Amino acid sequence: MNDPRLNHLLEFVGIPSVSAQSCHAGDMDRCASWLFQLLKTQGLDARIEKTPGHPVVLARSPRDASKRTILIYGHYDVQPAEPLDQWTSPPFEPEIRDGRVFGRGATDNKGQILAHILGVGEALAANALPVNVVFLIEGEEEVGSPHLAAFLESHREELACDAIAISDTGMAADGHPTLSYALRGIAAMEVRVTGPARDLHSGIYGGAVANPATAAARLIASLHDPDGRVAIPGFYNDVQPMEDWEREAAAASPLKDSDIAAQAGVHELAGEAGYSAVERIGARPTAEVNGLGSGYQGEGTKTVLPAEAFFKLTFRLVANQKPSDILAKARRHLEARCPRGVRLEITEGHSGEAFFLDPRSPDGLAAQAALEEVFGKKPALTREGGSIPILTDLQRILGHPALLLALASPDCRAHAPDENFPVANFLAGIRLNRVLMKNLASISVS
Amino acid sequence: MNDPRLNHLLEFVGIPSVSAQSCHAGDMDRCASWLFQLLKTQGLDARIEKTPGHPVVLARSPRDASKRTILIYGHYDVQPAEPLDQWTSPPFEPEIRDGRVFGRGATDNKGQILAHILGVGEALAANALPVNVVFLIEGEEEVGSPHLAAFLESHREELACDAIAISDTGMAADGHPTLSYALRGIAAMEVRVTGPARDLHSGIYGGAVANPATAAARLIASLHDPDGRVAIPGFYNDVQPMEDWEREAAAASPLKDSDIAAQAGVHELAGEAGYSAVERIGARPTAEVNGLGSGYQGEGTKTVLPAEAFFKLTFRLVANQKPSDILAKARRHLEARCPRGVRLEITEGHSGEAFFLDPRSPDGLAAQAALEEVFGKKPALTREGGSIPILTDLQRILGHPALLLALASPDCRAHAPDENFPVANFLAGIRLNRVLMKNLASISVS
Repeated sequence: MNDPRLNHLLEFVGIPSVSAQSCHAGDMDRCASWLFQLLKTQGLDARIEKTPGHPVVLARSPRDASKRTILIYGHYDVQPAEPLDQWTSPPFEPEIRDGRVFGRGATDNKGQILAHILGVGEALAANALPVNVVFLIEGEEEVGSPHLAAFLESHREELACDAIAISDTGMAADGHPTLSYALRGIAAMEVRVTGPARDLHSGIYGGAVANPATAAARLIASLHDPDGRVAIPGFYNDVQPMEDWEREAAAASPLKDSDIAAQAGVHELAGEAGYSAVERIGARPTAEVNGLGSGYQGEGTKTVLPAEAFFKLTFRLVANQKPSDILAKARRHLEARCPRGVRLEITEGHSGEAFFLDPRSPDGLAAQAALEEVFGKKPALTREGGSIPILTDLQRILGHPALLLALASPDCRAHAPDENFPVANFLAGIRLNRVLMKNLASISVS
Repeated sequence: MNDPRLNHLLEFVGIPSVSAQSCHAGDMDRCASWLFQLLKTQGLDARIEKTPGHPVVLARSPRDASKRTILIYGHYDVQPAEPLDQWTSPPFEPEIRDGRVFGRGATDNKGQILAHILGVGEALAANALPVNVVFLIEGEEEVGSPHLAAFLESHREELACDAIAISDTGMAADGHPTLSYALRGIAAMEVRVTGPARDLHSGIYGGAVANPATAAARLIASLHDPDGRVAIPGFYNDVQPMEDWEREAAAASPLKDSDIAAQAGVHELAGEAGYSAVERIGARPTAEVNGLGSGYQGEGTKTVLPAEAFFKLTFRLVANQKPSDILAKARRHLEARCPRGVRLEITEGHSGEAFFLDPRSPDGLAAQAALEEVFGKKPALTREGGSIPILTDLQRILGHPALLLALASPDCRAHAPDENFPVANFLAGIRLNRVLMKNLASISVS
């Protein structure tokens, strides 16, 4: 494989730009510089912008006021590669095997953002870029983008655009074009249930003193009704219901409930009555216990009546639920049901709104058409269960919901050993960028 | 204080006979030898009997077939003294302050068993012991008496007796004579709730995969009804209800509900409707969570859907509940309610039956009369919430429920730093033994 485009990818993946690990601080700068150079060779006006954390790399095509401007977001930082002994080839010595590039960041996000860069570079070289393009490539996505919102605010004018495109999501099936049009939001809460002043002897006091572990369990049990619906009053008030076309899209998804069960390793699925698993994950909000603890957790028996218990909750939200509203309702629900003899301390954690882009919008249709043209199949329209808080920031600050065009294959092993990116997806991504830019260009500027 | 009886106590407490700590193995033997010598000087025929663990010390008065035989049980081992820095005076350098002997084991159980030995010694010296006495003093009570049942079985004939007396329980109030006529039994169980093959991303799977933490909480919540009663079908079937005299005795106890709340450090008590806290603790069975855990328990948020959860339960039982029956009912209850999408693994732990001695029996009345004569007050009749498995063994193998004559003061700090035994209780204990032996002697041999 002497394709120079693949050599770019191997070089990019070879830089261990792990944003979470301070020993890689030099590699982060090196990676930003590499990207800066590459963007310049592709005919773009590039800049490295400092932030209080790792730098942002910005680049733009020559500006033409008559053209629409498309912002393409990506990130050059990667997840830590550990556990190293589980990699078939070293994570930062990328290798092509069986038509896939193996290495940390190959899919998430280096391969995907590079495809867009090279697509734009090809168009510029052919003097055929039909839009203005702005690349916004950050170095802190894998650590929660702590400085991106402030950066967007302070560069709002420079980043002004007509549409946003991102390839950082997963295809519904291998080779199946996919537009993800919704992601869930999140709202986190920790509840501490306190009872006696110290762990008590469960014989000497048991029966007369409320048990915080039991109280916590009763509170958790109160969060759902027997049909798996969240039982917090008003929880569903603002939920945007699935429309018929969405339920059809969910039913048509190549990702089937049986795939989800197999991936999760469960003998049967569960959840809210009246929805498929695909729908429950993408389009329905949840109340999930992420952790809980109380009393003696070691081997054998210790007959204590615990002094306290805690549980950690996250609510996954869908459009148009508001995290602050959900946290307030959850707090009222729990406080109203606080069992006798214990007290609650509720701490609110991080939150982010759900993301929703109407795929029937002109830009949504343009994206679907590009996906269909490149992959030769009608794209799957998917809703994803996870949360990408930066999508909310981009929409809030730049004014547009992002087009999420998946290039990651279902077995890309992002965040895990043997992360890989199919060469075919990489090359398809380059073509996709060109068709997408063309399709987006032809929409009349609003 | 030059009372030689007190000097015996100080010597006894000065030996660090900590059964749980192997560094004290030599002290255990030294303590058994000291006890052997003391018993001989009191006119008893003493022996040190080996067991697979620490030795048992046996002693008996000259046998007279026309007299009843009373077995007095006690133990010479003590709890570890840690944390040492919280003792006012060193735990194994006993000191008398404010009319109390301070030192590890002063109350539990050296002071109490020594009072009985010296009482019998006095009677023998005066040629006035009206019964045969057998002392059974073990060295493994604080580590769960692992070899006592086998010892009782193999020495059944030698230990044959007409009644059993033990002073190893607490007085209902300082200086208030107390006969504990019931203790709760116990049955332990651990439940593991398994779901997905590994911790999952709570965004990517949440809503479609059953959460084992939520499932565990729902199972725990199902153990009680809203009135605090255990909701396991048939749980109360065999419970011996409180009789009127018992409810009167509970109401008359100097230990009030407000004392229990203050000791536990809770702002309000809780528990089964229709009973006082004293009754709930002594006379009503419970289902108590001793520990539970699932998912992420560290700082902050980790958005996992946990692969599993566990909880540890102990049931406190009252007469005439059978541990095996309760465990079977609990298992059926949990298995029948196992939420969809998870599986249960239930492991049964240790168990022991409840203890009950009718205080209106001839021996019970003799014990009450002795307590009243020595302390000058009508004794409190109490039921205790804890469990002493050896009581069941003694009753099963030797055929009699034990008379539990409390000598420990409520602030004796057994198992804690600054353990102490009031000199007054020690001297009262010696007198109590003499009166008790006299009262028990006069009951016609059955």
